[in-house]
Amino acid sequence: METYASLRNLKFLLHEVLEAEQLSKFERFTDYDTEAMDMALEAAKQIADTYLFPYYREMDRDKAYYKEGKVYTHPALKAGIQALAEGGWIAAIDDFEVGGQQMPGVLLHAGLFQFYAANANLAAYAFLTQAAANLIRTFGSEELYSTFVPNMYNGKWQGTMALTEPQAGSSLSDITTSAEPTEDGHYLIRGQKIYISGGDHAAVDNVVHLLLARIKGAPAGTKGISLFVVPKYRPEHEQLVSNGVTTAGIFGKMGQKGYVAAHLMLGEQESCYGYLVGKPHQGLRFMFQMMNEARIGTGLVATGTASAAYYAALKYAHERPQGRHPSNKDVSQEQVLIIEHADVRRMLLFQKSVVEGSLALLLYCSYLSDLAAEAEGEAAENSHLLLELLTPIAKSYPSEMGTQAVSIGMQCLGGAGYTDDFPLEQLYRDIRVNAIYEGTTGIHGMDLLGRKITMANGKAVKLLMQEIQQTIKNAGAIEPLASMARDLGMATKQLHEVTLDLLALASQDVPEVFLADATLYLEYFGTITIAWQWLRQAGVAMEKLNAGLSEEENEFYQGKVYACRYFFAYELPKTNGLAYRLGHTKDRLTVDIPPAFIN
Amino acid sequence: METYASLRNLKFLLHEVLEAEQLSKFERFTDYDTEAMDMALEAAKQIADTYLFPYYREMDRDKAYYKEGKVYTHPALKAGIQALAEGGWIAAIDDFEVGGQQMPGVLLHAGLFQFYAANANLAAYAFLTQAAANLIRTFGSEELYSTFVPNMYNGKWQGTMALTEPQAGSSLSDITTSAEPTEDGHYLIRGQKIYISGGDHAAVDNVVHLLLARIKGAPAGTKGISLFVVPKYRPEHEQLVSNGVTTAGIFGKMGQKGYVAAHLMLGEQESCYGYLVGKPHQGLRFMFQMMNEARIGTGLVATGTASAAYYAALKYAHERPQGRHPSNKDVSQEQVLIIEHADVRRMLLFQKSVVEGSLALLLYCSYLSDLAAEAEGEAAENSHLLLELLTPIAKSYPSEMGTQAVSIGMQCLGGAGYTDDFPLEQLYRDIRVNAIYEGTTGIHGMDLLGRKITMANGKAVKLLMQEIQQTIKNAGAIEPLASMARDLGMATKQLHEVTLDLLALASQDVPEVFLADATLYLEYFGTITIAWQWLRQAGVAMEKLNAGLSEEENEFYQGKVYACRYFFAYELPKTNGLAYRLGHTKDRLTVDIPPAFIN
Repeated sequence: METYASLRNLKFLLHEVLEAEQLSKFERFTDYDTEAMDMALEAAKQIADTYLFPYYREMDRDKAYYKEGKVYTHPALKAGIQALAEGGWIAAIDDFEVGGQQMPGVLLHAGLFQFYAANANLAAYAFLTQAAANLIRTFGSEELYSTFVPNMYNGKWQGTMALTEPQAGSSLSDITTSAEPTEDGHYLIRGQKIYISGGDHAAVDNVVHLLLARIKGAPAGTKGISLFVVPKYRPEHEQLVSNGVTTAGIFGKMGQKGYVAAHLMLGEQESCYGYLVGKPHQGLRFMFQMMNEARIGTGLVATGTASAAYYAALKYAHERPQGRHPSNKDVSQEQVLIIEHADVRRMLLFQKSVVEGSLALLLYCSYLSDLAAEAEGEAAENSHLLLELLTPIAKSYPSEMGTQAVSIGMQCLGGAGYTDDFPLEQLYRDIRVNAIYEGTTGIHGMDLLGRKITMANGKAVKLLMQEIQQTIKNAGAIEPLASMARDLGMATKQLHEVTLDLLALASQDVPEVFLADATLYLEYFGTITIAWQWLRQAGVAMEKLNAGLSEEENEFYQGKVYACRYFFAYELPKTNGLAYRLGHTKDRLTVDIPPAFIN
Repeated sequence: METYASLRNLKFLLHEVLEAEQLSKFERFTDYDTEAMDMALEAAKQIADTYLFPYYREMDRDKAYYKEGKVYTHPALKAGIQALAEGGWIAAIDDFEVGGQQMPGVLLHAGLFQFYAANANLAAYAFLTQAAANLIRTFGSEELYSTFVPNMYNGKWQGTMALTEPQAGSSLSDITTSAEPTEDGHYLIRGQKIYISGGDHAAVDNVVHLLLARIKGAPAGTKGISLFVVPKYRPEHEQLVSNGVTTAGIFGKMGQKGYVAAHLMLGEQESCYGYLVGKPHQGLRFMFQMMNEARIGTGLVATGTASAAYYAALKYAHERPQGRHPSNKDVSQEQVLIIEHADVRRMLLFQKSVVEGSLALLLYCSYLSDLAAEAEGEAAENSHLLLELLTPIAKSYPSEMGTQAVSIGMQCLGGAGYTDDFPLEQLYRDIRVNAIYEGTTGIHGMDLLGRKITMANGKAVKLLMQEIQQTIKNAGAIEPLASMARDLGMATKQLHEVTLDLLALASQDVPEVFLADATLYLEYFGTITIAWQWLRQAGVAMEKLNAGLSEEENEFYQGKVYACRYFFAYELPKTNGLAYRLGHTKDRLTVDIPPAFIN
């Protein structure tokens, strides 16, 4: 079996870096000691090996298609969703008493990472359902919960999030799908939604859309948006009846061809009932829970995809002989394996540093989410603030840099990487959409610089800086890491200055100006954040390296230290150019240029 | 008709920047005044509009396929090749007396750019034939020329370059295809070749492979490689007879699906005759002519593809309303066009700066090639040296940065860009291979730092620096460009220092060490080179802006100045991080790491 994800690394991050067992001090998680966590991870690997990974390429070749109103998907999809449901993964975070596992989010995400690395295009269906069910669970009535959630948990019904409309891609203020109240308590929905992932397919009996619409007479903009449950078939008198949700087609996509993106028409030919979740006009606030989860999820999909590419490239580098060292021109000698070439090693280290750096950040975010939910008082609040601050980075860094990492993975294979004899070409097509899903990178840049930096009077940034300083302090005391600790200290100081300059600009001019390079600010902040995650990992690894280790364990920890060195030597210096540019945002170049000059 | 390339920009580069009319002082090119050049460019546009662009998407959907030993391509291919042949483009550089046009290379490439932007997957067939014919013309006997070239020029026969073998991808030393001399003067060829572009297809009557093989008993390594003409059908007694070249299949590729990459078996079932080109064991030297042309050609394909993506994104940005300015939260107001957003403008300027910066460099290289061929003495030698130095950059910068530019083009379209409703997804798949074709970027990094920098005692670099200093001096005298002139001066000075440090390292240690980051050195050198090309263009534009101009002309020149400002503000600063890393190559990180630590 090919490798697509490292179980050893997941255990390292959970137990050695995050010490996630500490969550068992919360009543909800008492069952989750180290052993329980490892069992869950290994069970996830089993499912991924059996039901997901073998169908990754096939689901691309035999892609989803639309015919006469129906959407057909690869036969493996049904079995895969069932396996994930039966393994308890869709209901994982819910209560024991309703068949859930009360699983900490950080463990769920460690499992998810394996599923996404094995076959994100299959796993995504199940975890979209999981997130949709969680939204009903959190904000919906008991009746909504009991009507819809059990069949979502058992994998028979698909869940979706239905936000996007043709005229209102990223601008949710502008959605026009309408909801008309009826005397029976439900609403009549009319409108259309596009790019609805998992929006319709034959592997499930029903599809449950968590849908944003505007109740007639509601205020304009985001303040007038409400959240509805809109099923494809609605339960009526113990039967399922058609609910006026028709599929106009599915989108042809460059990648993720097994993962349907549907175009839905609501209430066009027959009545479409929507069931209000919570109170009217609170829809966007509710949906933000799912969106924030989906953002971490998108980061995980990207990281999983980049992980599969990394191991495929690493395998090739160990098998393919090509060329000789520059110091050896003797053509009578055999060619060397390409992993002998420094440039190939650089490319592999880049991939490793992106994959494992991203994963460390994502699991840290999940851990914060658990603390925010279970801890009390300031601990909960601080965790929540940190999570809010880091979410745009945890979504965007893996998406952007993961795309580059897969590209570099392809480069390791040369011409072979461009052919469909290897999985790289599919991984390259598949990963690209993550920088678009759930808010483009540009939108997350605006979120970080325009909102997250200043929220709670900058408290989130302050908390993050404290965390980073703690890591710097720890690493500074470990000789081989001391110079990197100093580098991170300087980078953090520079980040502080750049941020202050931009905020000064915000107070002097219209917000267009200080936000003009927000995308680059996100890249800048993200790179420093991942450097921190690497130094933290290297610190843990250095401690372990003192003991007498097996060869394999020694290699694992040494790999961590080298990857950290790589990141500080090759990636962190990229912040020099970014800081320079961000220091010149005040030139208003992109704000002032007349559009006609871009020709 | 959609735009895919700017004719105005081609005229700007040819006439205003390069002043290519000066070539008409050479006897070979006397006919090529401004008017003749413009007529050729407009004729090229006509062909591209009619025969190439309309089939770009179709050739992807109805891709090339292999069935029972034959390769089938889209019906548009035959008509397209014919149109290019009849337009005189395949024979363009050959003499008038044999039906050629004695066209300067710089003009040919300006035409080619339009063809590649319109549909590289069709045009590439014709210009592979052009390059193969040119190789026979330059190094082959008169008999070979008269036997093969006329049918290549008229588009009936396809030409190829057949280098790659399964066990010897980038390592030509290790090719094993053999050539056994016969008493009749021809050789018997046995072996196999892979990834042979245009290697077999039904739109032509014959395929003429320019093939590298090893004559039995030849020395090992590259010194024992000879060049052969190996046709699919060989002319015998005025007939074409089968020549033992069989096609085992074609490769499934992520992109360029209309452009066949064949797997060929030679001399397996029947005799395969090869006709030696020039003398034995000189094959690699001869082939380098074609490879160097193909490298510039690859840069042009990448730039053309990125150009098509830029104009598609620009069009979308002018048509798509989405969101409002950060300073305007009034949702009752209409959404703005996305070109109003600073981040979208930044993304468009990035694309423009990559496309037009790359094209400027590529046409400059073609111009040098013309001078090297037609000038005399030192002028020819200097042009040749400069061309040699710049070739790895002209191949790799457009390939690497063009790939990023197309990705950013896709990002401008958001979700729509990922769907096949727009051409971006195909352009994204198609462009990626250019960083692999004709030597991966890593190989060109080694070529630049390991060979080109030091050749002729560093004379090429010295010549380039003189050119750059001249541009700096000119721009320094034009107020709005003066600060950029200073920035380029500093960047050049830093480049000089970084290079000296690396060469010092070369003298202290095995070459593996100083070459370890050669790929980054290429990116570093390339970015400064493109900055120079931009400053040169901006200098010309500033001079023109003094005159009374039409609105359109004013916008064109202002666009040049703004794109130059963009490049200096956003791209050139990336050299800071690269210079930092290259200053630390001596840490031997990627040379020393044990492979087992990359896990």
